[in-house]
Amino acid sequence: MQTSGSGYFDAAAGLPLHPVAVQALNAALADGWADPARLTGAGRRSALLLDAAREAAAAELGIRPDELIFLPSGAHALQAGVLGTLAGRQRAGRRLVHSAVEHSTVFKAADWQLAHGGETAVVEVDSLGRVDSARFLAEASRPGTAAAALQAANHEVGTRQPVAEIVAGLAAVGVPLVVDASHELIYGEAPGNAPVFTADARLWGGPAGVGLLAVRRGSRWRSPSPADESETGRALGVPNVPAIVAAVASLRASRQHRTEQARRLSGLVEQIRQRVPELVPDTVVLGDPVDRLPHLVTFSCLYVDGEALLTELDRRDFAASSGSSCTSDTLTPSHVLVAMGALTSGNLRVSLHPGVQQADVERFLAVLPEVVSAVRGQAPGNSPQPARRSEAQLEVDSRGRRCPLPILDLARALPDLPVGSELTVLADDPAAASDIAAWCRMTGQLLVSSTPGAAGATGYRVRRLH
Amino acid sequence: MQTSGSGYFDAAAGLPLHPVAVQALNAALADGWADPARLTGAGRRSALLLDAAREAAAAELGIRPDELIFLPSGAHALQAGVLGTLAGRQRAGRRLVHSAVEHSTVFKAADWQLAHGGETAVVEVDSLGRVDSARFLAEASRPGTAAAALQAANHEVGTRQPVAEIVAGLAAVGVPLVVDASHELIYGEAPGNAPVFTADARLWGGPAGVGLLAVRRGSRWRSPSPADESETGRALGVPNVPAIVAAVASLRASRQHRTEQARRLSGLVEQIRQRVPELVPDTVVLGDPVDRLPHLVTFSCLYVDGEALLTELDRRDFAASSGSSCTSDTLTPSHVLVAMGALTSGNLRVSLHPGVQQADVERFLAVLPEVVSAVRGQAPGNSPQPARRSEAQLEVDSRGRRCPLPILDLARALPDLPVGSELTVLADDPAAASDIAAWCRMTGQLLVSSTPGAAGATGYRVRRLH
Repeated sequence: MQTSGSGYFDAAAGLPLHPVAVQALNAALADGWADPARLTGAGRRSALLLDAAREAAAAELGIRPDELIFLPSGAHALQAGVLGTLAGRQRAGRRLVHSAVEHSTVFKAADWQLAHGGETAVVEVDSLGRVDSARFLAEASRPGTAAAALQAANHEVGTRQPVAEIVAGLAAVGVPLVVDASHELIYGEAPGNAPVFTADARLWGGPAGVGLLAVRRGSRWRSPSPADESETGRALGVPNVPAIVAAVASLRASRQHRTEQARRLSGLVEQIRQRVPELVPDTVVLGDPVDRLPHLVTFSCLYVDGEALLTELDRRDFAASSGSSCTSDTLTPSHVLVAMGALTSGNLRVSLHPGVQQADVERFLAVLPEVVSAVRGQAPGNSPQPARRSEAQLEVDSRGRRCPLPILDLARALPDLPVGSELTVLADDPAAASDIAAWCRMTGQLLVSSTPGAAGATGYRVRRLH
Repeated sequence: MQTSGSGYFDAAAGLPLHPVAVQALNAALADGWADPARLTGAGRRSALLLDAAREAAAAELGIRPDELIFLPSGAHALQAGVLGTLAGRQRAGRRLVHSAVEHSTVFKAADWQLAHGGETAVVEVDSLGRVDSARFLAEASRPGTAAAALQAANHEVGTRQPVAEIVAGLAAVGVPLVVDASHELIYGEAPGNAPVFTADARLWGGPAGVGLLAVRRGSRWRSPSPADESETGRALGVPNVPAIVAAVASLRASRQHRTEQARRLSGLVEQIRQRVPELVPDTVVLGDPVDRLPHLVTFSCLYVDGEALLTELDRRDFAASSGSSCTSDTLTPSHVLVAMGALTSGNLRVSLHPGVQQADVERFLAVLPEVVSAVRGQAPGNSPQPARRSEAQLEVDSRGRRCPLPILDLARALPDLPVGSELTVLADDPAAASDIAAWCRMTGQLLVSSTPGAAGATGYRVRRLH
């Protein structure tokens, strides 16, 4: 596996091209550049390549070739999976049910459905990030539900969802489940019994430009935007044959030793899960420790900013992700972590590619404590102005300060108070709502109340319990 | 220019990758595989490549970088151009005006608009395939018009449209024109004054996976399907950076000598336009002979089937296109040729790539007469049953026979009749309506009437005039 160095711990954001994909791509650029719908020799060669790729991918996924639609990206596939199922099932209703931790593409599709006269319902998750099957089934069985969407495993914390059980339960009431299988598919099984599922070739070393949408026989599905004749009337534009050929070649190559790889990577992740809290104080590992993706783990470091963590890691040639609100263009906190009740700042997602070795993980674990210390040391300096405390020390004014500063203010002020007394943090960063609640849970303090005040600020009353 | 041989006369269906594109693609696969939105080193390298490509493409098109949106194909760009302008202008109305010879993507978008409560109007073209500016302007100035769509030049017959005049006229009434510049852009100028225009990288030797949508400042536009943060919230999914880099590199390389190329290819096309009717009897060249794309020409060969022509040409290693109804999956005749009143069967579109030489054209012209003769010789054998003529020879029953058989039946029967008498052709192929009318115009006979009869059949009464 070609990577950008042994410190690339961001596989879940995409992999460099698999060597097999590079080979296949160059071969298919020469022989598959033409529109496969043309009656010319070049068109026929292209069509043969496309047919062969479709057959091979379908066999790998355990579906029929005509059930597989190639779309321009994983996001296109997921959006078309959700909106296309809603469009195909309009007679049943216009309601979409999905979990609170889906990929943002599902949330965008849900917003769209709402804006166009539909209805949506979100099923909450537990602190591990998992939906309760019975609750999901109950919500998705309600009349008027056209479709439900649930990922096979979460892209931020790795927790697997009870997909098989929910597919079976929903089949009994005739509601189709759309499964985002993108991350699960790399080392796990395709959700073969799901009526609709999707995947993204960038996650297994395929090129950009290829998403897979499987619409199983008997599922009602209609393209949610005008399609033309490509993909038997289910997609738009000339199919990207070279990229599709490369994506399928790398799917097969990367899944060839998936069981061994899953075992090996899961062991490395287990080491990270165990040792990070030992090595770095005030750190919490998120997600299910057992029933999870093998190659991915997220932990939260209290009192630090995710973006600063990434920058420090980058200086030491490590690449990772942060699901914290601070790395996004918008100031919205990670909806996954909010839904789990986890801290939304200072999160680090580490995702291993198949080439990662024990020594790489050791190097990462050796570097991490100093990285977090360095960022924690900087944190006050990052603050444009220190929080203002009232004289009685019973109120901290964190207005105008972005996460993680409000919880840093809280963590500094609370120890000055006697056990049993209360402190109010005034904050206007929307992320503070989930962060202060999560901090209290994590540190064993009590969030007594949250009271909206003037100008978008909220007063969070916290009691010192120990 | 790498092609699949000197007999590749189907450039307008896409070109093999330009050598510059192959180089750029492989370089960008190594350095631009990551999501440019990531804060990792790989992500930043990817973002730099994307920014540079956007700058270069914008400079080539004479627009600002932030006016350019990269989408997954030319069809995606055109669909988003039309539907996005309609979405952005909903307050002005829900009416779309377009010419009768637009790419099928525009017709699909128009159908979508109609199906979703909008209104559409089609502006007819003359026999060269051109709209009348005054008529187009009048139609597109009517109240409630949200957008108008007009191609820069036609993809089947090459005729250019009076785009600059119509853009200016519509600007005065505040209606934006969406210009499909795909074919014009290769050797001509970008329609710089158009509020919205689109192009397809496959036409200039870029890879599949890249369409260009230019939305000029001041144009109201909104993504017609849920977008995410890519392309500043105007597109979906991780941008296909390697393909974009390759597409832009080949755009610049292929346009570098565009004036000389246009002159040279236009001369070759002119030879084809002049010599085909001399070499092949019963052939008519379509489209404007002067104000046209330099590299493309379509002619109609009477009494033959387009697909059979393509097959015979293919045997001699020539690749071309046929816009006839017989090459499509559906039995619908080419809407472009119908709109022009041209014969919809037996059409051959020849489009030259930049590497075509005089000798290639000579070879094509040497082969064409025997190819057409061979197909014409086969034609009766293709007929599952000969047309039934009434004893009086005044009626020909062509029911159940597909184009071009009904006009072949007509052409055989009419000479048996005295000049001045009339013959009725009964046909149930919908293409016969335009084909018989076009045949009469081309051969100087008179179509007296068309009378719908039983079971979808129509009686076409034709008077022999000479």
